[in-house]
Amino acid sequence: MGATLAQRFRPLVPVILAGGRGERLWPVSRESRPKPFLRIAGERSLLQQTVLRAAALMPDAIVIATHEECCFQVFEELEEIAPQLDGAFLHILLEPETRDTAPAVCAAALYVARSFGKQAELLVLPSDQLIDEQAKFAACIARAREAAAAERIAVLGTPASTPQTGFGYIARESDGRDAGSFVEKPDRRLAEHFVASGRYDWHTGICLATAEVLEAAFAQHAPDILAATRSALIRGRRLAGHAQVFRMDREAWAALPEISLDYALLEKATGLAAVRADFAWQDIGTWTSLSALAAADSAGNQVEGKAVFVNARNNYVQSDGRLVAAVGVQNLVIVDTPDALLVGSQDAAADVGRIAEQLRRRREEAGFQHRTVHRPWGTFTVLCEDEHCKIKRLRVKPGAALSLQLHRHRGEHWVVVEGEAEVINGDATFRLKRHQSTYIPPGCRHRIANPGTRDVVIIETQTGDYLGEDDIVRLEDRYGRTQH
Amino acid sequence: MGATLAQRFRPLVPVILAGGRGERLWPVSRESRPKPFLRIAGERSLLQQTVLRAAALMPDAIVIATHEECCFQVFEELEEIAPQLDGAFLHILLEPETRDTAPAVCAAALYVARSFGKQAELLVLPSDQLIDEQAKFAACIARAREAAAAERIAVLGTPASTPQTGFGYIARESDGRDAGSFVEKPDRRLAEHFVASGRYDWHTGICLATAEVLEAAFAQHAPDILAATRSALIRGRRLAGHAQVFRMDREAWAALPEISLDYALLEKATGLAAVRADFAWQDIGTWTSLSALAAADSAGNQVEGKAVFVNARNNYVQSDGRLVAAVGVQNLVIVDTPDALLVGSQDAAADVGRIAEQLRRRREEAGFQHRTVHRPWGTFTVLCEDEHCKIKRLRVKPGAALSLQLHRHRGEHWVVVEGEAEVINGDATFRLKRHQSTYIPPGCRHRIANPGTRDVVIIETQTGDYLGEDDIVRLEDRYGRTQH
Repeated sequence: MGATLAQRFRPLVPVILAGGRGERLWPVSRESRPKPFLRIAGERSLLQQTVLRAAALMPDAIVIATHEECCFQVFEELEEIAPQLDGAFLHILLEPETRDTAPAVCAAALYVARSFGKQAELLVLPSDQLIDEQAKFAACIARAREAAAAERIAVLGTPASTPQTGFGYIARESDGRDAGSFVEKPDRRLAEHFVASGRYDWHTGICLATAEVLEAAFAQHAPDILAATRSALIRGRRLAGHAQVFRMDREAWAALPEISLDYALLEKATGLAAVRADFAWQDIGTWTSLSALAAADSAGNQVEGKAVFVNARNNYVQSDGRLVAAVGVQNLVIVDTPDALLVGSQDAAADVGRIAEQLRRRREEAGFQHRTVHRPWGTFTVLCEDEHCKIKRLRVKPGAALSLQLHRHRGEHWVVVEGEAEVINGDATFRLKRHQSTYIPPGCRHRIANPGTRDVVIIETQTGDYLGEDDIVRLEDRYGRTQH
Repeated sequence: MGATLAQRFRPLVPVILAGGRGERLWPVSRESRPKPFLRIAGERSLLQQTVLRAAALMPDAIVIATHEECCFQVFEELEEIAPQLDGAFLHILLEPETRDTAPAVCAAALYVARSFGKQAELLVLPSDQLIDEQAKFAACIARAREAAAAERIAVLGTPASTPQTGFGYIARESDGRDAGSFVEKPDRRLAEHFVASGRYDWHTGICLATAEVLEAAFAQHAPDILAATRSALIRGRRLAGHAQVFRMDREAWAALPEISLDYALLEKATGLAAVRADFAWQDIGTWTSLSALAAADSAGNQVEGKAVFVNARNNYVQSDGRLVAAVGVQNLVIVDTPDALLVGSQDAAADVGRIAEQLRRRREEAGFQHRTVHRPWGTFTVLCEDEHCKIKRLRVKPGAALSLQLHRHRGEHWVVVEGEAEVINGDATFRLKRHQSTYIPPGCRHRIANPGTRDVVIIETQTGDYLGEDDIVRLEDRYGRTQH
């Protein structure tokens, strides 16, 4: 299969999908901090691993598509790996609401077409996967680019070894040949038939095509998505002070359905090019897939954290500080976080997503929000809360500052327990060292900054009759948050 | 069976067993706050229910035997029911270490003999039981007193309906007749045989005998226990300012074995008098017995707290604030507390005790200590702790005061979030209202008192390089704690 010279010099733009709800990994993964930010199999997050993998392909740019609430978390993740990125040109596309992969890929195609031309090739990379063997990966992407030169969508498949019902299946063909069919999430019987036939691959979620081909496919199979996405892009805007961060228009975006690329496009499209993914690939979809990565003791129990077992076998326990005791139980997944606990059968791992769904309907915060919240200046963790008092631990990064703000209803006591802070309290500006404290009465403007080179940690005790997060007037903010 | 006039006018002294580890109800019940203090089936604790039940018998006195760490908790419990106690004469016997029921009953027998004469009748009442039908209970105790008039130990039995291996079994006889045999905790096969035969009762743990008869039985079957207990009593002392509180000598007590009355005495004694307990009786021994008291939803799930279920049936969930999600699991007991979590099979409820045992060996605090600790002045709860900082919520009762104290290594910041405190900080004494705060540097003497009529709640942020509870110098204490 030959490619013209022009085709060979098409820009390559990996599009990293870093949004989603990751509900099947609840309660560790939540909408406010989904799977891509988890540190699995190594010290780097799944997102960092994916960005570095993409950067190694020497692309013309990298686009990261994520939920707008995750924007500052993406900044942090990228900052950590900046020395390794070697000047790769990064763009961030912010989705105002989670809408699954079809709208994300469609928006990325339009964005890439506008920025790099319609001939630019999008390499769609989910970030909830573990991939080894970078050289094989790069070679496989090169073959996919060959296939895409024929103006087709190349889809990467890996041999289907078990009848998973959560994957898409593509007919196994020689590299670059037409994929005979694409079936997303078959039922158990069909999946068993696929595996038995030996002629099907799992779709890895990785695909490659030019912006033009993708746009044409959306126009044919999902014109509504194309129209709404285009409108969200036209009416969207760049983030103040961050030329490479683009926020889709909230209202236009809200009209989009929540649907995956596989359902909206790949299952309907004809002439997909099947490309064999021969590198080591693992989807991080459920707790079962995660537990496959952990070492077990002689009774088959896998533990991250503190646990004690009595007559318990083959359990996966992950605990964030608290002690977990398991007695007379088998094949359970036990995941404990500061505000929510999961106890599930390993067979039911795929049903975990239904919990977050139920909680979202009930508007339970634990469904989507973590106890520790990331902000551009660092993090805060709610340690304790009742009607009269709320206690937070603030961790402020070196060089960072919270907004200059005031609260109408609550007073705040700050005690510095690590580092040295620069504080504005009313008209005074002063330093607060470890062990020192200050009190900010209601109505008084204030700010914490960290002029030092290590984190500042402050215990904040709020008192007052109303302690909601919305009692805040931002007077000045270096992260552009005074308007919202 | 006749009783002499002297026998009929023997003093009656209920002895309430309120110690123990309650390890099979871990993590809710722990050595520092065992089962008797749990609020089950009503607003009153098991201890309060038992004390009121005993008081209704119009006894000459009531003795409560408990661990010395629980002393101030017993005070609190009794204070709450003081209006209902109607002047019942209460004594508290403090055990320096948990040693099960044989040493406790032996100590109580010697104590009662000394205070009320050898002819006084001890009514031994475990406090980890639910009993209904007070009139039937009183009538049954009257029959037991008749039986004890023949200088025997009366043991109360209730029909054995299932082959429980955790109970003692006594041959079922007419009231007051010799119990043919007493078998403590038989194996499963023997228990099944007992139940099938229809001739056995469960021992309720309630028994009645004169101090003299008990002492003689100990002399015959457990002379070591009698000797060590006598020595602990002779060398023990009354608590300063509390004439009715007697603390056994620590060193003598330490020599005692940890053994139940049933094993040490009842199984060996001849001529026990079997008395039928015809009142509603339920042992609160394991999570299974507790779950029998809770209402279930249509899927058989029982919940105290916040929970969400997906394909989950017949589970018992108890949670203290955190959200619990159960997916695809059956017949589990899930008990969540601020610092420890239990996930167990309902079939393995009796094995829960082995967790606390393991933790005690490993010296894990969660094995025996709760996150909220009771003190004579109120409670403190550790909200958060790391190497640089420890945050506590102090709740000080009206009229109470902490000791005048100082710390060598840590500083403390206090913020009042409820009530108004009187504070000594160095040479100054002042009031702190809600929203106000003060800082106590290391080495500075300080005290919090609550002069008001409602609780004072203070958030204490400790900073320093050493934050252990033993960094305390008590200068003055109204609860007699300056020496230890």
